[in-house]
Amino acid sequence: MKLFFSPTSPYVRKCLVTAMELGLTDRIELLLGKASPVLPDTAIAEHNPLGKVPTLITDDGQALYDSRVICEYLDHLAGGQLFPKGPARWQALTLQALGDGLLDASLLARYEEALRPEALRWSDWRQGQLDKVRRALQALESGSPALDQQVHIGTLTIGCALWYIDLRFSELAWRDSHPKLAAWQATFGQRASMKAEWSLP
Amino acid sequence: MKLFFSPTSPYVRKCLVTAMELGLTDRIELLLGKASPVLPDTAIAEHNPLGKVPTLITDDGQALYDSRVICEYLDHLAGGQLFPKGPARWQALTLQALGDGLLDASLLARYEEALRPEALRWSDWRQGQLDKVRRALQALESGSPALDQQVHIGTLTIGCALWYIDLRFSELAWRDSHPKLAAWQATFGQRASMKAEWSLP
Repeated sequence: MKLFFSPTSPYVRKCLVTAMELGLTDRIELLLGKASPVLPDTAIAEHNPLGKVPTLITDDGQALYDSRVICEYLDHLAGGQLFPKGPARWQALTLQALGDGLLDASLLARYEEALRPEALRWSDWRQGQLDKVRRALQALESGSPALDQQVHIGTLTIGCALWYIDLRFSELAWRDSHPKLAAWQATFGQRASMKAEWSLP
Repeated sequence: MKLFFSPTSPYVRKCLVTAMELGLTDRIELLLGKASPVLPDTAIAEHNPLGKVPTLITDDGQALYDSRVICEYLDHLAGGQLFPKGPARWQALTLQALGDGLLDASLLARYEEALRPEALRWSDWRQGQLDKVRRALQALESGSPALDQQVHIGTLTIGCALWYIDLRFSELAWRDSHPKLAAWQATFGQRASMKAEWSLP
């Protein structure tokens, strides 16, 4: 399989973390993806009209996206259990949606500051997105939705979301104001998949 | 069940279309959701820290989101087949992701014009998002990914995405330049779920 890759994309990381948990890392070749919201990557767009990483090309040439679809496909391929069946499924999938939503908001706040020309920035927009990030962190701290050390797509997504917050929003100093979430991350973050770094060959 | 609702949200529509296909409409009570990226709705945020519609409250009080999770939950609840098993699953889910991605880009283009103060608008951003929309429509026209009249979460999502394009971007006149997609929609759009309108009681 081939995966369009960017080292700073939290959604790419989510796919690679999932692959590592499933023992599939060696079966995935990384391809450079230079996606940006204002400059499309034509190599990616050939397979995914949205022009976004991650995009997976399967061994039989199908293009699969986005990260949720790729992760579930990898789980299926490996006969994994990262997407629980039964009532636990809806909690795991909602936790994934919370992590993805936290990341969507983080990325929009980041684009507002790092990509948009300074004269065109709108502080209410960035603030609105960062408020979503703050409310999501607070919800995780207060245990709703519940977070434990079980390894599934929900907890893996939250791990990747916190990785991105550390990468781009260290000024939030989220550990100081979220001690329970920090304790969760201190333990969960010991997993090899959470500590791994990926780069192009 | 209760669903936080906005009449112009394509993601809410996706959930209601799915519920109607599954015969679940009567079991869902609509609650007004006034979500905006810059003004959070506190009633929603109590259940979903991202403060977004759609958010579903199940009969046993669980909050589920986002639209992908809600739709799969409804399908499970009704014993439906809108989320295929086997190889067809990955195509249906990728088609859903394409429709959702087209909508994400449409909404960002719309916010740039309808929400952001005029002096702070960045035409490259709006253009970059509309380019994603155009490439997505072109991909659907050219049959990659394939679109047929089968009813599953992928085709339902594309139907809702085209509904939103008609609602907000009629100036794109997409039917003129995408005759195959227009023919697909002319047939698929005859389904009762595609023609339905919802409003608060």
